[in-house]
Amino acid sequence: MKVSKIHIITPIITRGIRTEDDSKPYLRPDLEVSYSLLDIGPATIESEVDEALAIPDTIIKAMEAEKAGADAIIIDCMGDPGLNACREAVSIPVIGPCQTATHIASMLGGTFSFITVLERLRPMIRHIISGYGLEKNYASFESVDVPVLDIEECMEALMSGLIDKSIKAVTEDHAGAIVLGCTGFLGCAEAITKGLLAKGINVPVIDPIPLAIHIADTLVKTGLTHSKTIYPFPGKKKRVGFNIPEFN
Amino acid sequence: MKVSKIHIITPIITRGIRTEDDSKPYLRPDLEVSYSLLDIGPATIESEVDEALAIPDTIIKAMEAEKAGADAIIIDCMGDPGLNACREAVSIPVIGPCQTATHIASMLGGTFSFITVLERLRPMIRHIISGYGLEKNYASFESVDVPVLDIEECMEALMSGLIDKSIKAVTEDHAGAIVLGCTGFLGCAEAITKGLLAKGINVPVIDPIPLAIHIADTLVKTGLTHSKTIYPFPGKKKRVGFNIPEFN
Amino acid sequence: MKVSKIHIITPIITRGIRTEDDSKPYLRPDLEVSYSLLDIGPATIESEVDEALAIPDTIIKAMEAEKAGADAIIIDCMGDPGLNACREAVSIPVIGPCQTATHIASMLGGTFSFITVLERLRPMIRHIISGYGLEKNYASFESVDVPVLDIEECMEALMSGLIDKSIKAVTEDHAGAIVLGCTGFLGCAEAITKGLLAKGINVPVIDPIPLAIHIADTLVKTGLTHSKTIYPFPGKKKRVGFNIPEFN
Amino acid sequence: MKVSKIHIITPIITRGIRTEDDSKPYLRPDLEVSYSLLDIGPATIESEVDEALAIPDTIIKAMEAEKAGADAIIIDCMGDPGLNACREAVSIPVIGPCQTATHIASMLGGTFSFITVLERLRPMIRHIISGYGLEKNYASFESVDVPVLDIEECMEALMSGLIDKSIKAVTEDHAGAIVLGCTGFLGCAEAITKGLLAKGINVPVIDPIPLAIHIADTLVKTGLTHSKTIYPFPGKKKRVGFNIPEFN
Amino acid sequence: MKVSKIHIITPIITRGIRTEDDSKPYLRPDLEVSYSLLDIGPATIESEVDEALAIPDTIIKAMEAEKAGADAIIIDCMGDPGLNACREAVSIPVIGPCQTATHIASMLGGTFSFITVLERLRPMIRHIISGYGLEKNYASFESVDVPVLDIEECMEALMSGLIDKSIKAVTEDHAGAIVLGCTGFLGCAEAITKGLLAKGINVPVIDPIPLAIHIADTLVKTGLTHSKTIYPFPGKKKRVGFNIPEFN
Amino acid sequence: MKVSKIHIITPIITRGIRTEDDSKPYLRPDLEVSYSLLDIGPATIESEVDEALAIPDTIIKAMEAEKAGADAIIIDCMGDPGLNACREAVSIPVIGPCQTATHIASMLGGTFSFITVLERLRPMIRHIISGYGLEKNYASFESVDVPVLDIEECMEALMSGLIDKSIKAVTEDHAGAIVLGCTGFLGCAEAITKGLLAKGINVPVIDPIPLAIHIADTLVKTGLTHSKTIYPFPGKKKRVGFNIPEFN
Repeated sequence: MKVSKIHIITPIITRGIRTEDDSKPYLRPDLEVSYSLLDIGPATIESEVDEALAIPDTIIKAMEAEKAGADAIIIDCMGDPGLNACREAVSIPVIGPCQTATHIASMLGGTFSFITVLERLRPMIRHIISGYGLEKNYASFESVDVPVLDIEECMEALMSGLIDKSIKAVTEDHAGAIVLGCTGFLGCAEAITKGLLAKGINVPVIDPIPLAIHIADTLVKTGLTHSKTIYPFPGKKKRVGFNIPEFN
Repeated sequence: MKVSKIHIITPIITRGIRTEDDSKPYLRPDLEVSYSLLDIGPATIESEVDEALAIPDTIIKAMEAEKAGADAIIIDCMGDPGLNACREAVSIPVIGPCQTATHIASMLGGTFSFITVLERLRPMIRHIISGYGLEKNYASFESVDVPVLDIEECMEALMSGLIDKSIKAVTEDHAGAIVLGCTGFLGCAEAITKGLLAKGINVPVIDPIPLAIHIADTLVKTGLTHSKTIYPFPGKKKRVGFNIPEFN
Repeated sequence: MKVSKIHIITPIITRGIRTEDDSKPYLRPDLEVSYSLLDIGPATIESEVDEALAIPDTIIKAMEAEKAGADAIIIDCMGDPGLNACREAVSIPVIGPCQTATHIASMLGGTFSFITVLERLRPMIRHIISGYGLEKNYASFESVDVPVLDIEECMEALMSGLIDKSIKAVTEDHAGAIVLGCTGFLGCAEAITKGLLAKGINVPVIDPIPLAIHIADTLVKTGLTHSKTIYPFPGKKKRVGFNIPEFN
Repeated sequence: MKVSKIHIITPIITRGIRTEDDSKPYLRPDLEVSYSLLDIGPATIESEVDEALAIPDTIIKAMEAEKAGADAIIIDCMGDPGLNACREAVSIPVIGPCQTATHIASMLGGTFSFITVLERLRPMIRHIISGYGLEKNYASFESVDVPVLDIEECMEALMSGLIDKSIKAVTEDHAGAIVLGCTGFLGCAEAITKGLLAKGINVPVIDPIPLAIHIADTLVKTGLTHSKTIYPFPGKKKRVGFNIPEFN
Repeated sequence: MKVSKIHIITPIITRGIRTEDDSKPYLRPDLEVSYSLLDIGPATIESEVDEALAIPDTIIKAMEAEKAGADAIIIDCMGDPGLNACREAVSIPVIGPCQTATHIASMLGGTFSFITVLERLRPMIRHIISGYGLEKNYASFESVDVPVLDIEECMEALMSGLIDKSIKAVTEDHAGAIVLGCTGFLGCAEAITKGLLAKGINVPVIDPIPLAIHIADTLVKTGLTHSKTIYPFPGKKKRVGFNIPEFN
Repeated sequence: MKVSKIHIITPIITRGIRTEDDSKPYLRPDLEVSYSLLDIGPATIESEVDEALAIPDTIIKAMEAEKAGADAIIIDCMGDPGLNACREAVSIPVIGPCQTATHIASMLGGTFSFITVLERLRPMIRHIISGYGLEKNYASFESVDVPVLDIEECMEALMSGLIDKSIKAVTEDHAGAIVLGCTGFLGCAEAITKGLLAKGINVPVIDPIPLAIHIADTLVKTGLTHSKTIYPFPGKKKRVGFNIPEFN
């Protein structure tokens, strides 16, 4: 049985948000997970500027992971920063958790709402989801106003906010599934599901990183990856100021 | 490690098209696959009438599989017959290979073409894909004119037809992925991929059933299923002429 | 003057909901209406499962009606169950009252709301209307929570619910027409229209079955029917468990 | 039995194109048709300018017809000139043959092509059909280059052009129905249908005026008309240079 | 430096609403503005009928302006009456302030709301914006109920209504820009912007006529105009009742 | 008269492609243009990777230009790299030539084709145009296969390729306008227009940079800029590896 070596790039420079423990429940003899952080980039991603600063080193980390033998790469941020650029740079599957979660949510619920940390992300998320061709399935955007670095310390308030917004998403916007819109919400899905069931609401609540790990494994096991005709290698040329390796 | 028990319903009455060998390459200690055929229904599904006749017994088979301990169900036909009805009838995930393949194709290629057996399926497929909210990603429909029951004996002509249509789909319709539009094409993806590569075309060719098995496993492992708020159990009432069990 | 013989199939097994009196106001020397019920199927249609169980015998009843000399067929349910399958099975026009009502509502009001019995039908109706290509004109879905078999006995409460929802549809969702979303609402349009006018709102309220009868007559008189290139006869093959006659 | 008095306004000044004979085949004891031409306006409608010049007198003719007891009005041009303005001006149904034909074509074929006289109408027709919310069903626009006033004398060449374009519309653009895009094509549908059948193609070919007459009758018989909330009467004000009567 | 001679047609017959002072702040040595009113048409445009009556003389005024040496034409009404017909009639750029404002609003805010005088314009504006291909960017329609001729005398109430509706547009409908939906609102943008900023909202508020003047200048300076392949000259023919000059 | 100081950032490191002469024809006493190149980034932009490497320094250059007194910024590349991020970083208008050209093309032609250097850009351009909400107006993508750095030396072959593709765009894809899809095509529009006119085709050919300069001037003169509610300043946080100044 082929072992799937999944590499997760958390595209920020802050240590400690993502740990090896996070994927332990999902490991199998045929499924391994490794991690990296950025050396160059922002502390968190909460704006288009942050995304832009995160992408160059994400590309480099993706190329290094492929060289080191990874079978698939996950970009650990719900803005899927650098998804297309990384797909140009490597041949192994590159997974965006936002893309994965919104497609699977569409499959399970028909429509979905996206619930995240900051109201300011609304236009960016609309643009991303529309780019995936899923706007017809996109029921609504909801936000609880908590900056990413404060997620852990305000967990209780956050959780009650997430439950309230999820209830609103289903009852008012008719969402058939909830997509947790920040990979920092890892592990919150179960409590939200319970909060919804307490109101008689039964919709899937998608925790994007565990899902992305299994979708990455699915692609490895079925031999599928993105099209290199659609995402061809960047040509050779002068690129100043980044330690980008040569492309194939 | 939880074992995923995947049950595949081939929604026709014809023996021998689908065998246990088909899923052998995908089995793992934590992944089992079982099969059933219909007792009541058509020999093959090549029309809306055939679909309609296949659905009642597909619902019954899905309910039986859930009762027998299955963790997820796959409906083995690219028309996804009875997908919504089965989701009403059971609580475990029900997977349509068309829905799965078109969503994953969208993720890997941005756009996709659907290549199948009969031209007459064009309007039905358009309707299904539009219902999944994926029409923006749907590059084209192509058909090779071979009835389902003749697939095995015309394999060579079929294969060259599939390759030609795939080339056309990429070069003229700008598809970024190919979805094989008949589950009877199982195993053809590799040869088509080679045929495309010989023309310098690198796009994923999706073989829907192996993909569906892994997506079913993904849902089981992550504890996700369809929304019972969106697909509620059918109420109790008189239903004459079918041995439909009581719903929960 | 050619006489149009319209046959209405009420795709359930419950006697007494639909009677010959219902179409009396619309009869003319050149317009006759006949009726049939199902022998096999559900008591009412309130779920995707119910629809699935209704379709096989609806196909048979449609084929029998054509053979008996009908000029057009109406499927008497706002889910238009079996519309495409029946069009494959016969050559005379087959009319879905949902399709007819939503198209005519689009013509008269630009946009329309669909007001029906049960909230659970929301995703199914969205899917149907999108399949007709009318999602741009679809202002909203509203429901009054009354099971189909209770319609007659709760007529008063139902009527006031229908009026309230219609007012909301126009003032909040900007609907330009109301489509009554259950053929069991036959005869309610006049009272709803009055209720709306009392609030200064003048929009057409469409009672689908009378409209369908006249549209069926229109098709007969103009010699139009559905395309047999788009809805070809199902091929010959083994179909077990249903008394489906041979197709042409 | 209520008699439906249908009034057809041919929104041009050219006598002889439309005659009372045209509707004779559709008359019934309960269906009468009357006609009018414009006094002010263009000889034919082949541009946006022509449309603009046709609309003021079309409004006046519609108001006069309502005052004279008409039950419904048809604007006899496939650009539906003045449809919305006439609906503001009167309360009886106003029918645009383009709107009617494209909706009924969507019902019968799923998709349709629009075949008309002049290539220059392509953007105008796209705009009109999109305004009706039907762009998803719009397969293609085809034109045979014949000016409106030359239609009668080039009937043979025209007919063969219409058949060729219809074949192309079905085989290349996958149209499920043909809409004849000029009311001057009255009576051509039968020959085109035959030409298509000779190629094994069976799709409805819609002759818009006979259809519009029956749809107008349908609205009269079911008591439906456009919404006066959506199309309210124009307010009182100074309007110089037109003999517009007072609005209600 | 080429001087841009911009001609503004106010497509109504009422004197005094638009004066030469309105464009003074925008004049430059290389930018001149002239004006005309209609001789034939309505006092104001508040319905589809009014629009229809305004267009014939707008076409004539546009042709006269081109003959008199204008470099570009602006139709001074947010319904863009006669935009397409005028483009057929002349070769110099014809600018619709609604088209211009909604495109620039899309560029600056992603989405926009349209705030105008009368609720009854909702369907017409929806149709216009959809015709420009901008429905995806159209956040909402809001109206303050003031007839056009009363704008000046109710300026205070109007202004507070406009600010309230703009706040609602941003906070509830998530508009990224405000389009003032009546050219009679000229000069109101500054006060609305201040009212929004007082609530912490920073979105552009577009005053359509000043914008249209600069866009007209842009087209003149870059040598761009509309396509005469898309908007060809109307052919020669009899056109009774209007003093339309010969077309080129 | 306020002077508009427009700053053009060419987001690559290659000197000599863009010179001060390029904007000379557009200068006025009230319109000044300045330029900058990147210090860090790619030699040219021909892939998503190139774009990603260009954006960080583009943001810095935009912030420097605003601080130096610029009134508006143009990003001189048809991929509009960093448009949203720059709008977050500064308050003065930031213009993407692709966004500007596709909106103005929509206004002048209804639909447009995008003609550029490399076939590989097709998916990226589709994504960008869809993000601007203009997919309904997007007729087609055409490419002439010439790498950006070879444009000048293959000007003749390039020009004939551009004319051929433009003819195809109009006659086969029914484009109403041509958008030149590479800012390196500066100055080619006139010859393409002539080539089209020689075939009897009259559609505007948009040279994006001259247009962008005038649109930038338009925004400055009318006091419009992007919404800071939609593009808020990025918060304060650690951002390693880039000399990003403090945000406001």
